[in-house]
Amino acid sequence: MILTAKYAEIYDGQIKVLEEKFTNLLKDAKPDSLYDPCKYIITSGGKRLRPFLVLISAKAAGGDFAQAYNAAVAVELLHNFTLVHDDIMDKADLRRGRETVHVKYGLNPAILSGDNLVAIAYKNLILDCRINITEILNEFTCGLIEVCEGQSYDTDFETTDDVSIEQYLLMIRKKTAVMAEMCCKVGGLLATTDHSIVDALGNFGLNLGMAFQIQDDLLDIMADQEKFGKKVGGDLVEGKKTFLYIRALEKSEGTDREKLLEVTRNKGIDWNDVGFYRNLYIKLGVIEAAESEIKKYTEIALESLNKLPETEARHTLEWLANALIKRAK
Amino acid sequence: MILTAKYAEIYDGQIKVLEEKFTNLLKDAKPDSLYDPCKYIITSGGKRLRPFLVLISAKAAGGDFAQAYNAAVAVELLHNFTLVHDDIMDKADLRRGRETVHVKYGLNPAILSGDNLVAIAYKNLILDCRINITEILNEFTCGLIEVCEGQSYDTDFETTDDVSIEQYLLMIRKKTAVMAEMCCKVGGLLATTDHSIVDALGNFGLNLGMAFQIQDDLLDIMADQEKFGKKVGGDLVEGKKTFLYIRALEKSEGTDREKLLEVTRNKGIDWNDVGFYRNLYIKLGVIEAAESEIKKYTEIALESLNKLPETEARHTLEWLANALIKRAK
Repeated sequence: MILTAKYAEIYDGQIKVLEEKFTNLLKDAKPDSLYDPCKYIITSGGKRLRPFLVLISAKAAGGDFAQAYNAAVAVELLHNFTLVHDDIMDKADLRRGRETVHVKYGLNPAILSGDNLVAIAYKNLILDCRINITEILNEFTCGLIEVCEGQSYDTDFETTDDVSIEQYLLMIRKKTAVMAEMCCKVGGLLATTDHSIVDALGNFGLNLGMAFQIQDDLLDIMADQEKFGKKVGGDLVEGKKTFLYIRALEKSEGTDREKLLEVTRNKGIDWNDVGFYRNLYIKLGVIEAAESEIKKYTEIALESLNKLPETEARHTLEWLANALIKRAK
Repeated sequence: MILTAKYAEIYDGQIKVLEEKFTNLLKDAKPDSLYDPCKYIITSGGKRLRPFLVLISAKAAGGDFAQAYNAAVAVELLHNFTLVHDDIMDKADLRRGRETVHVKYGLNPAILSGDNLVAIAYKNLILDCRINITEILNEFTCGLIEVCEGQSYDTDFETTDDVSIEQYLLMIRKKTAVMAEMCCKVGGLLATTDHSIVDALGNFGLNLGMAFQIQDDLLDIMADQEKFGKKVGGDLVEGKKTFLYIRALEKSEGTDREKLLEVTRNKGIDWNDVGFYRNLYIKLGVIEAAESEIKKYTEIALESLNKLPETEARHTLEWLANALIKRAK
């Protein structure tokens, strides 16, 4: 218990450092029409998991935090770019309790500030590249390509009736997990030329990312409303094809199946019906199916850490993987 | 005259090679929802000036074409990304005589395929980085940042009454000229570590880009309709603040000034009034002012080539600068 507190302290301490960096970034950049939206999104908080993965991976690979801050900033800028553009595409009005960028500043500044965030991300990344330069840039770039592909698959799913679990897993792999993999690999590549270390870190990140996304799907329907921060059941209301929904459809028959098909047919359900579908998910056993899938990916992630030397940084990664399973939002 | 034909042949030959590369690029990439729009824009032709600048600059710096093709593809992909996103922002329906990407495929695929083009651009660029890696990536990245800033300034101008020539020149420098500078520097950096060569190439590109953009403004009102490929006078119809418009406003008084102010007040003019404004521009001497500005920038560009060894590649750059002044579209 005392040990756990220590790792949480390492995380909290680094988040503080990162927040200060995000506050000071782009301070005097002009024009305001471009940089105000950029500053608005990068100072809007969030868990800062991706930059933390870069930092702690660099340390786990034998480096230190100081040599990875610019790269950490870079991955968070890249993540924020995806948020800005995804929110446009999803027509989302709110993000982290605030207006989304396109709602606050308009479509054109949102598109352009997203583009600019990508460029500033690269600019920061390059600052930290001392060894493995082309590899680091390739990882970062391929991460960006896969995120675009994942987002396209996700959009395709809206108009596809029979999305399989395999297709779903490929989509979240590209849209979420590859980015976590990239963060861990970039952190490792900043600090070591030992590719077994880098690959172990990448494997950790990839599987952590898979677990994280399925946990996200699960929380959306099973979270404690008090702690969740947004309304429980949003995925069903939007008619999204989540892990739970696809598994439920596979397992259901008769009227249960009919009720599930209604979700996509009507492009979502009413908030009042969330409870009904939660009970249906429980009855069909897809809650346990999701929990077991999350456990499976988390175990693979933890196992791959065995290839790293036993350091405080490695234990922090273990703590992080376990903490994410238990998260409430 | 025979020599000129030789340089044109070098250009034509390389454009053919490039076109084949663009046709084969992304052939088996999935999903189609992401890559069809990408392939649509990159096979839509155009002058391919930017990739040619990379190739011929590499050669002028002592390298050869073969070591610069991926980087050449990269700058054209980056340029095409700006076209896709700019067309969304400008609500443009047509580009090179075809539907724009967002009109043909919709807003979301246009945003996302633009994003993806940036990533694929980096992926290609990295392939050619053997020396000066961080410098090349920095040039490319700063080029992208400045393009975003330039586009923001351009958008700001739509709602700014008193845009000065200095502000206009800063805008076209960022939006157009820096990209040409980047192409020449990247080409040089692929082939040499001699920074005096790289700087001379960059200076050539920057000034060529300035001349090119003012020439663009000039052609829009003075081009031969038969050869121009689109309707003459579009900038006035859209109410854009071009070099000619800003200079005309500075030089005008009384009713002339009133007529010019109407252009922005009414957010553009009627196609039928293009002739009137052309005559007004001629009367106010802004056609000559533009021509002299184009000449000035072209001369600076040509002068900076004197720092390069006298090779066929250098002469090709000279030919290109002179040919662009005389272009009809």
